[in-house]
Amino acid sequence: MHDEVSPIKQDLPRSYAQAGVDIAKAERTIALLRAGVHATAREATVGAFGAFGAAVRSPGSDHLLVSSADGVGTKVCLVRTEAEAAGIGRDLVHHCINDILTCGARPLFFLDYLAFSQLEPSFAAALVSGMANACAAHGCALVGGETAQMPDLYREGAFDVAGFIVGTVSADRFLDGSSIRVGDSLVGIASAGLHTNGYSLARRLLADRLEEPLGSGSIRQVLLAEHRCYLQELAPVLDEGLAHGLAHITGGGLPGNVPRMLPEGLAANVHIEAMPRPAIFEVLLGYGLDREEMYRTFNMGIGMVVACSPKNLEVVLEALPGALPIGEVVEQRGAQRVVGIS
Amino acid sequence: MHDEVSPIKQDLPRSYAQAGVDIAKAERTIALLRAGVHATAREATVGAFGAFGAAVRSPGSDHLLVSSADGVGTKVCLVRTEAEAAGIGRDLVHHCINDILTCGARPLFFLDYLAFSQLEPSFAAALVSGMANACAAHGCALVGGETAQMPDLYREGAFDVAGFIVGTVSADRFLDGSSIRVGDSLVGIASAGLHTNGYSLARRLLADRLEEPLGSGSIRQVLLAEHRCYLQELAPVLDEGLAHGLAHITGGGLPGNVPRMLPEGLAANVHIEAMPRPAIFEVLLGYGLDREEMYRTFNMGIGMVVACSPKNLEVVLEALPGALPIGEVVEQRGAQRVVGIS
Repeated sequence: MHDEVSPIKQDLPRSYAQAGVDIAKAERTIALLRAGVHATAREATVGAFGAFGAAVRSPGSDHLLVSSADGVGTKVCLVRTEAEAAGIGRDLVHHCINDILTCGARPLFFLDYLAFSQLEPSFAAALVSGMANACAAHGCALVGGETAQMPDLYREGAFDVAGFIVGTVSADRFLDGSSIRVGDSLVGIASAGLHTNGYSLARRLLADRLEEPLGSGSIRQVLLAEHRCYLQELAPVLDEGLAHGLAHITGGGLPGNVPRMLPEGLAANVHIEAMPRPAIFEVLLGYGLDREEMYRTFNMGIGMVVACSPKNLEVVLEALPGALPIGEVVEQRGAQRVVGIS
Repeated sequence: MHDEVSPIKQDLPRSYAQAGVDIAKAERTIALLRAGVHATAREATVGAFGAFGAAVRSPGSDHLLVSSADGVGTKVCLVRTEAEAAGIGRDLVHHCINDILTCGARPLFFLDYLAFSQLEPSFAAALVSGMANACAAHGCALVGGETAQMPDLYREGAFDVAGFIVGTVSADRFLDGSSIRVGDSLVGIASAGLHTNGYSLARRLLADRLEEPLGSGSIRQVLLAEHRCYLQELAPVLDEGLAHGLAHITGGGLPGNVPRMLPEGLAANVHIEAMPRPAIFEVLLGYGLDREEMYRTFNMGIGMVVACSPKNLEVVLEALPGALPIGEVVEQRGAQRVVGIS
């Protein structure tokens, strides 16, 4: 037992606030985001804001619960305004929804983790309002979250966000790629830009050019383009059982993600030039980096890949505006599971 | 449209790795943690490691899904060894399990978010192995996670972790505190130390004394004492329906957390001296900070509070080794909902 009492030093904090943690600010943040969060409540939501755990009615034992955890990488470093912070909130929810959508699941509920070097209540509330809007638009309840203020971990002015989603799909509609066959068509759905991957590289390459004009805004604004959510356009395709598999193109690009939906022994033969690339990728290609490295780092214009029977290709393309055939499933020969990039 | 091609500058990164993101290291990390994660698979787990979403069989529509998101604050700043990193992994899981336990829920599955300034595969694997061990010990499947390497956000050498848990309870056993009545007994269950709250203050106060001996180790080691998990000891109490409410004492301490289980109009009268305090709190009390501030920042030796009928008090105390009666539920008079601290 050591219970010696130390003399109080002048430079030691006298309160939690002096140690960098402002509870009053945290409480103000919670008050600001309460209304937006309430707007996402679903019929199945049980229990009150502020409880230790958030409760949602279970969908039934013939269903599966599909979950995913995601961040948005260093895209957060480009944010300057509260409106842009709200965009990051939407990015995070869309990323999570797309991930569980690849299993055929629709969102049930979402939780967030926010960490700041310094908590600015209105900024944190903007982030959460973006999440709440995206959740409400897709029938998902924002049921909880954790907000931390940690100047010792985060660089001055930095913040990070992580999202956790749980969705559900009836067991007989669970999509695991096992129905994918040689000869299946691959359909690419357009991305809106980098979505939430490759920012550590893109920001470094473009550091001096962020305010240059590109399209209708600056390069910085184009880099902040929203991570598209594919739930609404893919819902009819899933409802009709037309998709054999889905791959969400995030970190690792086409070569890192398409194999995640493919059964063993199968590979994807892609015609990457079939898909038009948003202008930002042309700017990035201008730096002359290795082409395969580019396709491993960025989505290069393709946000989601759908595998379907070639006989359903026309129907799938009609259901998905702007989608294009980008290849087909082949037998794997050699180590490469995505052929046609390099 | 802006598709001008920039000249390549010598100091620009030529690859994702040069931009601070090492995909090979990330892949090595995943290989290292695969086995530990597989060991947590439950009967209800569906689908493969590496899929976009993790699937678990739904427990049935007579059940509720209870979820929570948590971090461990700046406790991470005290970690020096891989064994200590594993301890942080256990802390995170225990924190999450305790949160949903307050609703009467048992864990189903857990996902993590890890972010580093520099990813060290063996260190990241140690963190996840701690999580996997804690999950396996409590019947919880570690179904997924996200690992990010973001030197632009995190201070040199820093890392952060967040956890997300989903558990379940049958709807008729859901604990929301609504059965708590005036006269109910409050039982305190001992904490092992600070658990995962108050570290920004404690580390600052004790910065020069971390290697001083305290008990069987150094102050730093005592600060790293594990966040206790109360699932196993509370399970029989919950099974027999003896708890009217549970409060997990985390950020905000007794005054911030006990009211979260209380119905409106009720307050807690606590006898804080009834509970022995681990030595670290005596050291912290030695700095002469405001007593109420101390009780709002730290758990001060009480990790969980159980509300029960006074007629069941003896049975509850017998079921919980080291637990002590620390007060009773009273009618709220004035603004204070926890009386007896200042």
